[in-house]
Amino acid sequence: MILHISKEINKGLLHKLQNDYLTTIIEKDNFIIIINLTDNNIEKELQNYIISKYNISTEAQLSSREYKAATTQINFPYGYGYIGGDEKNTMIIAGPCAVESEKQILESAQFLKSLGINTLRAGLYKPRTSPYTFQGIGDAGLSILENIKNEFALNIVSEVRDITNFEKIANIVDIVQIGAKAMYDQSLLKACGEINKPILLKRHFAATIEEFIKAAEFILSAGNEKVILCERGIRTFETKTRFTLDLTSVAYLKKFVNLPIIVDPSHAMGYSYGVPSLAKASLAMGIDGLLIEVHPNPNEALSDSKQQLNHNEFTELYQSLKEIAKVTNKKII
Amino acid sequence: MILHISKEINKGLLHKLQNDYLTTIIEKDNFIIIINLTDNNIEKELQNYIISKYNISTEAQLSSREYKAATTQINFPYGYGYIGGDEKNTMIIAGPCAVESEKQILESAQFLKSLGINTLRAGLYKPRTSPYTFQGIGDAGLSILENIKNEFALNIVSEVRDITNFEKIANIVDIVQIGAKAMYDQSLLKACGEINKPILLKRHFAATIEEFIKAAEFILSAGNEKVILCERGIRTFETKTRFTLDLTSVAYLKKFVNLPIIVDPSHAMGYSYGVPSLAKASLAMGIDGLLIEVHPNPNEALSDSKQQLNHNEFTELYQSLKEIAKVTNKKII
Amino acid sequence: MILHISKEINKGLLHKLQNDYLTTIIEKDNFIIIINLTDNNIEKELQNYIISKYNISTEAQLSSREYKAATTQINFPYGYGYIGGDEKNTMIIAGPCAVESEKQILESAQFLKSLGINTLRAGLYKPRTSPYTFQGIGDAGLSILENIKNEFALNIVSEVRDITNFEKIANIVDIVQIGAKAMYDQSLLKACGEINKPILLKRHFAATIEEFIKAAEFILSAGNEKVILCERGIRTFETKTRFTLDLTSVAYLKKFVNLPIIVDPSHAMGYSYGVPSLAKASLAMGIDGLLIEVHPNPNEALSDSKQQLNHNEFTELYQSLKEIAKVTNKKII
Amino acid sequence: MILHISKEINKGLLHKLQNDYLTTIIEKDNFIIIINLTDNNIEKELQNYIISKYNISTEAQLSSREYKAATTQINFPYGYGYIGGDEKNTMIIAGPCAVESEKQILESAQFLKSLGINTLRAGLYKPRTSPYTFQGIGDAGLSILENIKNEFALNIVSEVRDITNFEKIANIVDIVQIGAKAMYDQSLLKACGEINKPILLKRHFAATIEEFIKAAEFILSAGNEKVILCERGIRTFETKTRFTLDLTSVAYLKKFVNLPIIVDPSHAMGYSYGVPSLAKASLAMGIDGLLIEVHPNPNEALSDSKQQLNHNEFTELYQSLKEIAKVTNKKII
Repeated sequence: MILHISKEINKGLLHKLQNDYLTTIIEKDNFIIIINLTDNNIEKELQNYIISKYNISTEAQLSSREYKAATTQINFPYGYGYIGGDEKNTMIIAGPCAVESEKQILESAQFLKSLGINTLRAGLYKPRTSPYTFQGIGDAGLSILENIKNEFALNIVSEVRDITNFEKIANIVDIVQIGAKAMYDQSLLKACGEINKPILLKRHFAATIEEFIKAAEFILSAGNEKVILCERGIRTFETKTRFTLDLTSVAYLKKFVNLPIIVDPSHAMGYSYGVPSLAKASLAMGIDGLLIEVHPNPNEALSDSKQQLNHNEFTELYQSLKEIAKVTNKKII
Repeated sequence: MILHISKEINKGLLHKLQNDYLTTIIEKDNFIIIINLTDNNIEKELQNYIISKYNISTEAQLSSREYKAATTQINFPYGYGYIGGDEKNTMIIAGPCAVESEKQILESAQFLKSLGINTLRAGLYKPRTSPYTFQGIGDAGLSILENIKNEFALNIVSEVRDITNFEKIANIVDIVQIGAKAMYDQSLLKACGEINKPILLKRHFAATIEEFIKAAEFILSAGNEKVILCERGIRTFETKTRFTLDLTSVAYLKKFVNLPIIVDPSHAMGYSYGVPSLAKASLAMGIDGLLIEVHPNPNEALSDSKQQLNHNEFTELYQSLKEIAKVTNKKII
Repeated sequence: MILHISKEINKGLLHKLQNDYLTTIIEKDNFIIIINLTDNNIEKELQNYIISKYNISTEAQLSSREYKAATTQINFPYGYGYIGGDEKNTMIIAGPCAVESEKQILESAQFLKSLGINTLRAGLYKPRTSPYTFQGIGDAGLSILENIKNEFALNIVSEVRDITNFEKIANIVDIVQIGAKAMYDQSLLKACGEINKPILLKRHFAATIEEFIKAAEFILSAGNEKVILCERGIRTFETKTRFTLDLTSVAYLKKFVNLPIIVDPSHAMGYSYGVPSLAKASLAMGIDGLLIEVHPNPNEALSDSKQQLNHNEFTELYQSLKEIAKVTNKKII
Repeated sequence: MILHISKEINKGLLHKLQNDYLTTIIEKDNFIIIINLTDNNIEKELQNYIISKYNISTEAQLSSREYKAATTQINFPYGYGYIGGDEKNTMIIAGPCAVESEKQILESAQFLKSLGINTLRAGLYKPRTSPYTFQGIGDAGLSILENIKNEFALNIVSEVRDITNFEKIANIVDIVQIGAKAMYDQSLLKACGEINKPILLKRHFAATIEEFIKAAEFILSAGNEKVILCERGIRTFETKTRFTLDLTSVAYLKKFVNLPIIVDPSHAMGYSYGVPSLAKASLAMGIDGLLIEVHPNPNEALSDSKQQLNHNEFTELYQSLKEIAKVTNKKII
């Protein structure tokens, strides 16, 4: 249950709500939000201050359509675009798995711009499974991304692995990506809740929808409304594909959750041959964005080499996406 | 490994292949197919009779694109249509979960025909989870389906639960459906291999792609080439949706397997609200067909009431599907 | 809800219960059992005939401890033993995956008897994944099993693959095994409900506890109370082991279900090295039996060769099991 | 492949190994360890310096029994005990889910000591799923744990949630616990690799054995050999139990990995009724320790209230464990 209450409430009562009733309190300019999950007499005690009340039937609170029906609109500095809001736009985020060199990122940026794409992804701190493989170039890539952003007017998306690299990334990117493996990292979620940039929150590959939503609530309840959910495949018994893209969950989230949702078919499939058809499938559902790995030379990529499209494959896919967007009333930004 | 060998081979050698080498032997009009999975000297012994040889790198044998590159074409009596072959067509199969009454099926048939749809699905023998719920009307519905088929010139798809109802169903339907729970029933698979009608083989909700393909191989190796694969959702840890639609596996199957593939979004989602978007997603991938549950009055359905679309919802979806088909070069049949 | 009602009830009312109310009716010698899962006025209508009433809070009905608290006792012809009842006994079922030859079964029988084990398992009709591998020797093995049983006074457990081999197996064995892949085969479950021999029902590797229990209810509601549940590993994301032995579910079943439960560590692990420790673990939980694959020469086995223990390994395990049984107050039979 | 090479190797070559060949280099007192996973000419180049060479056939490197056959011995300050080494000991770690108050921890410590148990677990920073529930008392509990440790001579185990609370915890506890949700947090893993205290690494509920081992390798390769693995249940399709305890994986780890392994049945089961039987099962397998939640008053616990044993239940279990330990040649410490 969420309550909006008047700022005229006395401090003592507010203190009681927080300490005795274990509610969450979020101060807004004109009112106070109280989130209360337990059975107590809170409504009765607050009755003189309640502005509005929302009964929420799912695990979502601030992210529930029962609390706010419209999808949150999130704007981006480059490309004059937004997602969410009237839901007319679908955003393409593309680029290599990892920043490997200045040359590779330059080629990627030129390629994307030549197609009219405005958002580049590339990782610096890679949360690899093994300590004995490439871990990303780290700090050395920060200036590369910053230069590319300024030179090409591209929105930059890059992943924070944990709180130790959060500030470095948050300072230069336009969208902070929380990777799947970090979805349960609450210090990181809270840190993301205290900044004002969009957060792209990837679903952990074993997170239930409930856990995914609640991870988003950590960010929302810390004050940042700009959360973009990203489905990127879940772990199942099937091993011929890297993960299993869970579009049934995307259908659930579109129905019940007020945050924009994008899909990453590259990590789900794990093999480039399947990425175009999954990207088209996701777009046809009416999602808010696609995150696709594309590399100037996938065979030489230092990570995820099997799943990255080359420039020709991506160009062909992009034409198909534009055709599908037309008949599904979406504009690709 | 598959070999095509000459019919001039002597009986003794053929007998040896079968008994000592545990190969599978399929007699065709002009040659003999030998399927051999073990390391032995078979090639050497057969060298004088080998017409052609196929090394297969996946679990598929007869269904592998390494054996036969083109998708098998499967024709249907009504609607002047086919799927597979040049892959220009996508088939819509629609109708209620179960036959409940003559009136209900009549309404369904009239509705489908009014839209120009040529294939009706409806179950008689329902493999329900509990013995204490509706199990289908059984034999009483056989004549209902037969009459509808003749009156409306509709292809009929209906499920065999096991070998005890196989013949009854096989005699009247145009496509025999093997349900997910029966996918491992080898007596049933073999029986389906001995008839000449198309078999719609649903993936068990816990079957790996490998097991799914091998179930198809039971039918193919028994002599029936007309197998249609159907993805209908797999069981994962997620419980907010009934199953998880596995389109990553569909991408794998399209790439490596020479059988047409259709998708059932109704059972995967389990809730009608998500069915249209998953149907559109599947179509945009370029699949060969869709199997969608639609009921004149879903709230009164005796089974699967939450996931069946009503006639208005289905009509709206059908218009969208036609739009997507246009831009993906598919004709809806 | 289960009701016991008097046999004095009139036919009309009974007919109404069956047809209008979709209840399940089981006639016993002195009373009638009514199983009713839907919200209706049945209690009111039957009030003059109700002998006793059981509210069941789980999916189980006849198998619920809320209906019958004590574990069902199941007796076996050889070894003067039983399981269930006072729960003092744990049964060892051992033997090869498949009957391969008379010699192999003879060696197995002599080995088991030499240890004092009274129950032999061996399959004739193997539900293999691929049509191109060994499928069991089938009918040819029926007389082998029958002779062994008579000569050695061993209880025989063998698997029915489906209804086509049900009678052949049911006629000669002492315990009819329904394999994991056949757990959803309702014609088979009902056939097993109509005989009077113990049924060993294996959990399908993707069956929820709920589905497993309801499969048992198909047998129970058809009239056979002698159902033994068998946990044999579920399919998860982990691939280094063949399946994942689900002892958490065994703990659930022991708590809530009134049927004996045995564990098959061989199929769960898939590798002989892990079978002894899992067998000991299962026994320490207080289960009613163990089903263990042991072969005179595992390397030459035609199926499951990696997971079968050899005679030395089994002998060593058997000594350990007896030690654990002592401190957990179980007698090994 | 792991190589031990002489310290006489020149800097240039060492530099080349690190930068061009992407190997991992660990300096020991008398030799240098080189871990190399890629196909290159490294052996040839190093031939004059190689002391010994280990080919590893699994994902494990430093943790592989192919590298070091014996289980690593890990000692604890209190209780004069160790685990691993000759594998004669099994360690009981018990205590409440979370530190709630000084009184609650005092009661817990007294209880454990009265039974002769030497190791207490209790969490301060709880990684809860929802931001709207109890998150642990945090820093306020540090002095409580420190006092208890000194007063009762108890080894303390407590969880670090992420790098922000690592030092606080590491300074006071005897065993640093990395919780399941933090298993992929590589900054945390590396930090744990740089201290000299035992690390209890819990398997993430969706981590494959491979990922679990590789998480341990992050700690080992950073210099800390004292890693204890902990299986605590994996996420599967089953929902009647909280997780599925994966003892098949424990059998794999015992066979192939040289680190001690303990089991947490409380989180796996999620309900106290099943904890004793799973604890007994785990012990009978020959594991190195058990982690069990026990609370003076489970009904009033602020987290995990359903799965914590009360003192009577735990006392009874403890007696059973001692009986099983006797016949499995383990000493409980």
